[in-house]
Amino acid sequence: MDDYDLLDTASGNALVTAIDHGLSLGATEGFRDPEATLRSVLDGDPDAILVGPHFARRYRELIANAGVDVVVTADIVTNSTRPGFDDGHDVWTPGFDPELLLELEPVGVKVVLVFGRDDRQLFRRNLSYIAEMAEQLRGTDVPLVVEPVMWGERVPAELETHPEYVARAARMAWEYGADILKLPYTGDVETFEPIVEHSPVPVMILGGPKSGTTAAMLTDVDGAIASGARGIMIGRSIWKTEDPTAVISALDRIIHERASVDAVWSE
Amino acid sequence: MDDYDLLDTASGNALVTAIDHGLSLGATEGFRDPEATLRSVLDGDPDAILVGPHFARRYRELIANAGVDVVVTADIVTNSTRPGFDDGHDVWTPGFDPELLLELEPVGVKVVLVFGRDDRQLFRRNLSYIAEMAEQLRGTDVPLVVEPVMWGERVPAELETHPEYVARAARMAWEYGADILKLPYTGDVETFEPIVEHSPVPVMILGGPKSGTTAAMLTDVDGAIASGARGIMIGRSIWKTEDPTAVISALDRIIHERASVDAVWSE
Amino acid sequence: MDDYDLLDTASGNALVTAIDHGLSLGATEGFRDPEATLRSVLDGDPDAILVGPHFARRYRELIANAGVDVVVTADIVTNSTRPGFDDGHDVWTPGFDPELLLELEPVGVKVVLVFGRDDRQLFRRNLSYIAEMAEQLRGTDVPLVVEPVMWGERVPAELETHPEYVARAARMAWEYGADILKLPYTGDVETFEPIVEHSPVPVMILGGPKSGTTAAMLTDVDGAIASGARGIMIGRSIWKTEDPTAVISALDRIIHERASVDAVWSE
Amino acid sequence: MDDYDLLDTASGNALVTAIDHGLSLGATEGFRDPEATLRSVLDGDPDAILVGPHFARRYRELIANAGVDVVVTADIVTNSTRPGFDDGHDVWTPGFDPELLLELEPVGVKVVLVFGRDDRQLFRRNLSYIAEMAEQLRGTDVPLVVEPVMWGERVPAELETHPEYVARAARMAWEYGADILKLPYTGDVETFEPIVEHSPVPVMILGGPKSGTTAAMLTDVDGAIASGARGIMIGRSIWKTEDPTAVISALDRIIHERASVDAVWSE
Amino acid sequence: MDDYDLLDTASGNALVTAIDHGLSLGATEGFRDPEATLRSVLDGDPDAILVGPHFARRYRELIANAGVDVVVTADIVTNSTRPGFDDGHDVWTPGFDPELLLELEPVGVKVVLVFGRDDRQLFRRNLSYIAEMAEQLRGTDVPLVVEPVMWGERVPAELETHPEYVARAARMAWEYGADILKLPYTGDVETFEPIVEHSPVPVMILGGPKSGTTAAMLTDVDGAIASGARGIMIGRSIWKTEDPTAVISALDRIIHERASVDAVWSE
Repeated sequence: MDDYDLLDTASGNALVTAIDHGLSLGATEGFRDPEATLRSVLDGDPDAILVGPHFARRYRELIANAGVDVVVTADIVTNSTRPGFDDGHDVWTPGFDPELLLELEPVGVKVVLVFGRDDRQLFRRNLSYIAEMAEQLRGTDVPLVVEPVMWGERVPAELETHPEYVARAARMAWEYGADILKLPYTGDVETFEPIVEHSPVPVMILGGPKSGTTAAMLTDVDGAIASGARGIMIGRSIWKTEDPTAVISALDRIIHERASVDAVWSE
Repeated sequence: MDDYDLLDTASGNALVTAIDHGLSLGATEGFRDPEATLRSVLDGDPDAILVGPHFARRYRELIANAGVDVVVTADIVTNSTRPGFDDGHDVWTPGFDPELLLELEPVGVKVVLVFGRDDRQLFRRNLSYIAEMAEQLRGTDVPLVVEPVMWGERVPAELETHPEYVARAARMAWEYGADILKLPYTGDVETFEPIVEHSPVPVMILGGPKSGTTAAMLTDVDGAIASGARGIMIGRSIWKTEDPTAVISALDRIIHERASVDAVWSE
Repeated sequence: MDDYDLLDTASGNALVTAIDHGLSLGATEGFRDPEATLRSVLDGDPDAILVGPHFARRYRELIANAGVDVVVTADIVTNSTRPGFDDGHDVWTPGFDPELLLELEPVGVKVVLVFGRDDRQLFRRNLSYIAEMAEQLRGTDVPLVVEPVMWGERVPAELETHPEYVARAARMAWEYGADILKLPYTGDVETFEPIVEHSPVPVMILGGPKSGTTAAMLTDVDGAIASGARGIMIGRSIWKTEDPTAVISALDRIIHERASVDAVWSE
Repeated sequence: MDDYDLLDTASGNALVTAIDHGLSLGATEGFRDPEATLRSVLDGDPDAILVGPHFARRYRELIANAGVDVVVTADIVTNSTRPGFDDGHDVWTPGFDPELLLELEPVGVKVVLVFGRDDRQLFRRNLSYIAEMAEQLRGTDVPLVVEPVMWGERVPAELETHPEYVARAARMAWEYGADILKLPYTGDVETFEPIVEHSPVPVMILGGPKSGTTAAMLTDVDGAIASGARGIMIGRSIWKTEDPTAVISALDRIIHERASVDAVWSE
Repeated sequence: MDDYDLLDTASGNALVTAIDHGLSLGATEGFRDPEATLRSVLDGDPDAILVGPHFARRYRELIANAGVDVVVTADIVTNSTRPGFDDGHDVWTPGFDPELLLELEPVGVKVVLVFGRDDRQLFRRNLSYIAEMAEQLRGTDVPLVVEPVMWGERVPAELETHPEYVARAARMAWEYGADILKLPYTGDVETFEPIVEHSPVPVMILGGPKSGTTAAMLTDVDGAIASGARGIMIGRSIWKTEDPTAVISALDRIIHERASVDAVWSE
């Protein structure tokens, strides 16, 4: 069930660079010139990039020429009604039509599943949407990637990567229809490995806002892969660095060749 | 009207083990490793298992090889927007498409009917959904199993299995379209028998959270069958025990052979 | 326009016994054993019974063998989210699909039109639903029976049968699409006759909760028929009595033969 | 674009008597016996009557025999959830299906556009509905008549016919899709003429609640026609009078023959 | 991807005069006589006019004879439920059917994207609508013009043209599906040029309420074109002037011939 093109690599893992942030943040620091950021990412030769469908359309030729696959984001989530601001509540809505998404020949379609909201109706719509999207993609060979996150007001920030929360959220995400999970990393192999093992669908990890050093991020990725994760979908920790191409190369060696962090990176 | 495959057993009764809890609880105590729990249940050889549709997809081969049928859960109900928590209000939403459900060749499709909610609009949608789902399944040979429960805030916990509530709820459930009822057991034959007798559709019982001993649960099941119930759809009281396979075997003898509780179980 | 099967009797009137109460009350006093109540009603040989569609399905053969027609209820209305309780506000929702309803070969489809609600949005949906249902049935020979009632919080109980309210409500009901009206009786010929005369569609009367004696009910029916009404759709005042069969017989003689109340009933 | 059947008269103007009030007021003073009111109106031989679609169905033969056309009302608007009452807020909802409306072979379909409501969501639905109905009728030869009115709580009663309000509302109504406007008359030619002149679609005037004398109403109609209006859709000021037939005759001479008010009426 | 008819001019730029204000303002100062305003605009021979679809229908021949293209507005936005008033909150709703819009053979379809609203649900619908409309137009050669504006209560008026807001809003607009952006001008080339450069889709500028002199407006347009913008969609600063035809001529020389403001205008 999981011989998806996305994971059809020599290692069976996939390095996906997320550059779909324009959908939620607009023109943001480090990503104001979309073509420049795209080029620096493509230069690193990731297996795929995660992009909005219209981003994929606008730069279709550039991406195709680089021989990089696309995973497309199907929903829209911002954190304010003001452009690119964060007012503490997500504004989530179904976004793009499956016909548009599939016309882009993606290797995956990505949606979020936001836990912890005060707005129960929005949560219900989010659940239904995942089930619907799973049904839309069933029968195609394009997997539905679900990203369960604890962004809601009812989950304190420090619990967003707590193993108990992540384990539960992961289970719910594939019970609702995920073919691949994009999970928060719990921080260590000991807690993450059972989550991966108990999942009948492949697990990848997300990045979140760039917070620490590149080395720390690489260490997390190394731990995730060691836990059995099949790759990453990380954005800001790549393109907010000084040399995205170099970071992707380092990630590539960890993810595909299981090189050690020390072997691939020194600050 | 009730020669459904599900009840087409030698005794005319059916033992269904419910393992659809991932939909609402996520990875929960006793069910963190879904394949392990599934295997321990299949080893007991129940007539069918109650599962979410994507659970059925992921473990389709394993289930088929065990020769066990599936009843699929069509809606999603959790008790919080936080993953697997209980904040005292159900978050209910229509879940999965009938096409997906039927593609799994189930012997039943299961939905809840939650009474007692403060949220009247949600209750209305629940009613409409049952009527719609009944219509979707009409003309197939797959029965609609409706589980009327008193989970809402307006019904005190101690009344959730009260005969008057259960009788009314049962009647409403089949008037709205149930082909089979999954009812709370009222606790004794005296009160449950008339409910079963007054129902033109087969009655099965649910388990609820594991609260007492296995022997107590078996005694309830024995009473339900003695009342005319055609079987059970019980989960936690099975897979939260130390030996689910043994519990299922004991249930099997009570349900199909009308063995006594004493004959099949000693703690 | 009104040569409906329902009214195609020797007298041109119809006696319909309403036994669709399970939809709103669940298992209720006097109607806990649905088959027993159904049999006692069928024994009286009414022209038709008013039932929920799934009730009609479950007892189809029994009803057909009795040679009694069915009018089916298309919507769901309860007075609480608790099963069969009355919390003072109606919970109304569109219920059953026209395809299901028509498959039952009914001689009428019945819906309510609830006036006086505080919830204006629900009222709007009720209005739209009647218009839609009328359109669904147009072109079939199945009439839409609309029952305009003053159940909302904004109409005091003592005005629910006031001639001015009934007259206005009746007019609105057929302007929205009713083919037949099921009206509250105003209590006397003087006030009810003009309402019937001013209606271009046939009028029948409803019963309401059994409140008085059978003789009083029969007197009301006699008055309604004298006012030009074409029959009744009454339930509780029939099946809550000791001998429903006898009450139906008495009603039959009043409605079809215009016998006097004294001639057909003595307590 | 405006050679509609409705305006295809010798004068190019049309006299439409509105008798669709049962939709909002139920059985109301002066219109309790719908057939009697209809006959008294038809006797006056107006060019058309404005009616609800089911009214048109019920009295189809009578209307057809009189050789009078129908304009049908497509939406439902009442002013209370109580039947025919006015609680100060309109309850508006889309009503009847275009298929039903067109099956009646109308010379126009009429909807309201209510300005000034506190309920912004209802206003939005009203706007969308007009645009949708215009699209449904495009390609038929049936014009959409939009009646923009200032009934909402936010417009004081004395401004409901203010030229500035009427001019703006008229413009918006045809920008949203009206083929013909049914406007409040502003009270004098000086202010009404520019509104008519600036409209690319024909203008007719509405009546409103009967408030003054018939002579005053006729004077208003005369002023409207003098301003370039192409006719009227007036109800209560006609059928609430003692002799509707006579009032219609008087209107006919003013509208079609441009007779003076004095020539056609003396109280 | 951007060889749209709209921009297929000698200069590659386009001068669009916006006269769709009747949709939101009704009959407004300077635009009370729609035909007169239209004629004065057509006399200036802009490349296209921005109009509501029914405006385009009513004056189709006049516009076609002038050889001027149309961009049509697809949604409805007013600022009050009172006609043409501004109560400080936008009332936005999807308006016109793509079939109607395309039947008018437009060179563009225009919608707004309003940032800063308190009403999050309305914002969500706005986002979804843009995505849907983009999908409806995909495969036609008609570009979707999105106008991202900061009208909501949460953005102070002085920030509506702030470069950071405009940059973010622009990015979001094309990520959601815009083929062409209609942006607020930030006031100087220094800040506007990077916004244009970072956009993979053509940028045009909007006008906003006429606030300054015509010379000031022309200077802004000149700056926008110097920044790489491909033209304008400006209304009130044109038709609220004494001589719209002359203003359009001046704009034409700036936009197409890159004449200086001084060369084309002196007050």
